[in-house]
Amino acid sequence: MGNTVKQLAVLGSTGSIGQQTLEVVRALPHKFHIIGLAAGGNTDLLAKQINEFKPRFVYHQNRESQAHLANAEYELLPLEEIASHPQVDAVVIATSGKTGLSPTLAAVKAGKKICLANKEPLVMAGEIITSEARLNAAQILPIDSEHSAIWQCLEGETQPATRLILTASGGPFRGYSPTQLDEVTAKQALKHPSWQMGTKVTIDSATLMNKGLEVIEAYWLFDMPFENIKVLIHPQSIVHSMVEFIDGSIKAQLSYPDMRLPIQYALSYPERLPNPQLPRLNWDNISNLTFEQPDLDTFPCLRLAIEAGMKGGTYPAVLCAADEVAIDLFLSGRIKFADIAKVVEQTLEQHQVTGHPTLEEIMTADAWAREKALQLITGDNLCGLP
Amino acid sequence: MGNTVKQLAVLGSTGSIGQQTLEVVRALPHKFHIIGLAAGGNTDLLAKQINEFKPRFVYHQNRESQAHLANAEYELLPLEEIASHPQVDAVVIATSGKTGLSPTLAAVKAGKKICLANKEPLVMAGEIITSEARLNAAQILPIDSEHSAIWQCLEGETQPATRLILTASGGPFRGYSPTQLDEVTAKQALKHPSWQMGTKVTIDSATLMNKGLEVIEAYWLFDMPFENIKVLIHPQSIVHSMVEFIDGSIKAQLSYPDMRLPIQYALSYPERLPNPQLPRLNWDNISNLTFEQPDLDTFPCLRLAIEAGMKGGTYPAVLCAADEVAIDLFLSGRIKFADIAKVVEQTLEQHQVTGHPTLEEIMTADAWAREKALQLITGDNLCGLP
Repeated sequence: MGNTVKQLAVLGSTGSIGQQTLEVVRALPHKFHIIGLAAGGNTDLLAKQINEFKPRFVYHQNRESQAHLANAEYELLPLEEIASHPQVDAVVIATSGKTGLSPTLAAVKAGKKICLANKEPLVMAGEIITSEARLNAAQILPIDSEHSAIWQCLEGETQPATRLILTASGGPFRGYSPTQLDEVTAKQALKHPSWQMGTKVTIDSATLMNKGLEVIEAYWLFDMPFENIKVLIHPQSIVHSMVEFIDGSIKAQLSYPDMRLPIQYALSYPERLPNPQLPRLNWDNISNLTFEQPDLDTFPCLRLAIEAGMKGGTYPAVLCAADEVAIDLFLSGRIKFADIAKVVEQTLEQHQVTGHPTLEEIMTADAWAREKALQLITGDNLCGLP
Repeated sequence: MGNTVKQLAVLGSTGSIGQQTLEVVRALPHKFHIIGLAAGGNTDLLAKQINEFKPRFVYHQNRESQAHLANAEYELLPLEEIASHPQVDAVVIATSGKTGLSPTLAAVKAGKKICLANKEPLVMAGEIITSEARLNAAQILPIDSEHSAIWQCLEGETQPATRLILTASGGPFRGYSPTQLDEVTAKQALKHPSWQMGTKVTIDSATLMNKGLEVIEAYWLFDMPFENIKVLIHPQSIVHSMVEFIDGSIKAQLSYPDMRLPIQYALSYPERLPNPQLPRLNWDNISNLTFEQPDLDTFPCLRLAIEAGMKGGTYPAVLCAADEVAIDLFLSGRIKFADIAKVVEQTLEQHQVTGHPTLEEIMTADAWAREKALQLITGDNLCGLP
C-alpha cells in the first residue's frame, strides 16, 4: 500500500457496481488506476469508459463490439485472462449472475486480491473458490454492504464471531400479504426503497432471494454455520450488518446506503481513505432504526436459499440458475411475482444433488436447472404452477 | 495472557462496579484472582468479600474498621500501595468521585494495567495521568460502557477515528420541561430507567453531568478534539457508543445495559471470554432504537462540562468538586434538582483558572471549589441562587 497506485481490473464496469467503482477511482486517482475493463451489452458506455480510463486490457461480450472497440490502444483479452493478469493488483468482480464464476476462479488461482460484488460465484462454487483461495493465498474482499459490514466489525478481533446478523431492507413489498404480492408488477418490483442496484439484484431483493444468497455467501466468507447466521429486516438500511462475539458484545457497521463505501473499503483495505463524496450520517435526521423478523411464509425465497445452502452440493447452483430463469420470465411478463419462488422450489425438488461437486458438475447442474425451470413454465406444466 | 491467572486489585469493591467486577471474577475463576480489595464505608460487605476472596492486600477507609478487619491474614495497605503493588497485574479503579485520583496516578506511575471506572481521575487530571501513562507504558482500559464501546470499535483500525458519538439514555427526566424538573425529588432522580449504578453517578446521569464527564474522559482516552465528540440521546441504552472513520463508515457496539460486559472486556482484553451469565441481545424483542439530540437548555450540566473540558486547566476539577457538593446538598434536601447546575455554573464562573496544573494545583482548586460551592448555599447567598 502506502504511496503505490493499485492497478485495478473491473469486470462488469458498465453495471451499477462497476460504474460506482469507477466513481471511487475518479475520486482517488492517486490511489487507483484502471488497467482492465470488461462489460456485457452496453458498448456505448464501455467505449466512453475506455476513452476516459485508457485501460490496457479490455473484454466485451459482443464479438462485433470487440472488433469495433479494437481500434484503440489496448489488448482484447478473455475475462479470465484479465482477472488473473500479472499486472493486475486487484480485480473487481462486478458481473451479474453466473458470469463472474469463471473469472473469479481464475483470479483465486492466480492468488489475486478479489473485490467480490457478484454473489453467484461463492453461492454456486463456494467450496472450490474458498479452498483455491487458501491454496493460492488469494484474498476475497466482499463488496456487498452486508459482508463488508461484517468484515469491518471482525477487523482486529482475535477470536471468531459467534453469530452474524445480516440486515435486509425488506424490499419494496415488505408487509405485503401473499394476495397483494400476486398483483405486483415488474415496474413495482424494480423500485427498491433504499438501494440503487442492477435489475437482477433488485428483483432478488424484492423476493428476499438476495438475502438468502447473502447468507450462503456469509457461510463461505466467514466460515459460520448456517444456524448462527440470522436475518433481520431493517427498512432504513443504515445498519448494514452486525457481528456477535463470544462475550455477547455486538458490533455493527452503519452508513447511508451507498455502495461506494463498501467498494472503496475493499479497494483501499487495510487503509481507509478520505473521500469527500462519501456521505456522513447526519444524526439530526436519524431518529429511529427499526428491526423486525423476516416473513418466510410470504417471502419463501429466503427460506429456499438457506435450505439449499444447508443441503449444499449442487443445490445452491440449481437455486441460482432457476432464480435467474424465473426472474427473466417475470420481467418479460410470463409469470407472476410469486411464481419466482415456485419455479425455484419445484426445480430444487426435482434436482438429483451431487455432493462436493467439481466445477464441471456445477455447470451441468446449472444447465439442467435452467432447462428444468423453463420447462416448468413453457412445457406440459405451462401455467400449471400450484 | 493465555492460561495465566490475572492478579486483580479492586478499589471500591463494595460499590456497584466493584460488586459486578467480583461477579465476573466469580464466573471466571480460572482467569482472574483477587489479590487486593479496598472499600469505603461498607465494612460488613467488605468483610464478606475478604472472607470469600481471601485477598493478600486490603484497604478500608474507616480506621476502626481497619483494626477490626485486621484479624485475618492479609496486609493492610494504603490505596496507592495496593494500586501499584508489584504483585498486582491489573487494578480496577471502581471508586467514586475524586477518591480514585491518587491510586490511579500511583498505578500509572507503576506502569500497571488500569481498568478505570471512576471518571474523576481523568476529568480532573487527564493531562498528568495520560502523560504519566505514556511515560511508564501503563494501559488505561475504560470500564464505562460508552468508552468501552468506542475502544471495541477502534480495535484493529489502523487510522484514527474522525468522530466519536457518545450515547446517553437521557436519564429519568428526559423530555421534562424546566418547570417539571424543579419539582423532582431525590427519590425520583435515583431511579434510572436503564442502568443500575451508584448514587453519585445516578444523579449525574439525571442531570446529564455524567455524559459531560464522559466527553472529557473521551477527549483524554482517545485524543479526540471536543468538536468531534457528539452526544446523542438513545433511551434504550442498547447502542453504547459509535465511532466514525475517515471514509464515513461508522462502527457501533451494542448489548443490553449490563456493566459486567465492559468490566469483563477490560479484564480479559485482548481476549474475549465466554461467560454464560452475560445476556445476549434478543432481536425478537428489539424493534426500535431511537436517537435524539440532547436538550442543553433543560440540562445545562452537559454544556457546563463540555465548556469546562474545552477551557481545560483547573476548570474540570472545579466542575467535579462543585458537582459533588451540589449532589450532596440535593440528596440531603437542601437544594432543588435544577440548583445542581446553578451551583456548578456559579462556582466555575468565580474560578481563577490555572493552566496545565500540577497535582497540587488541582487539589487546591478542588478544595477551593468545594468551599465556594458550599458558600453559595450556606453563606450570604443562602437560597440566593438565581
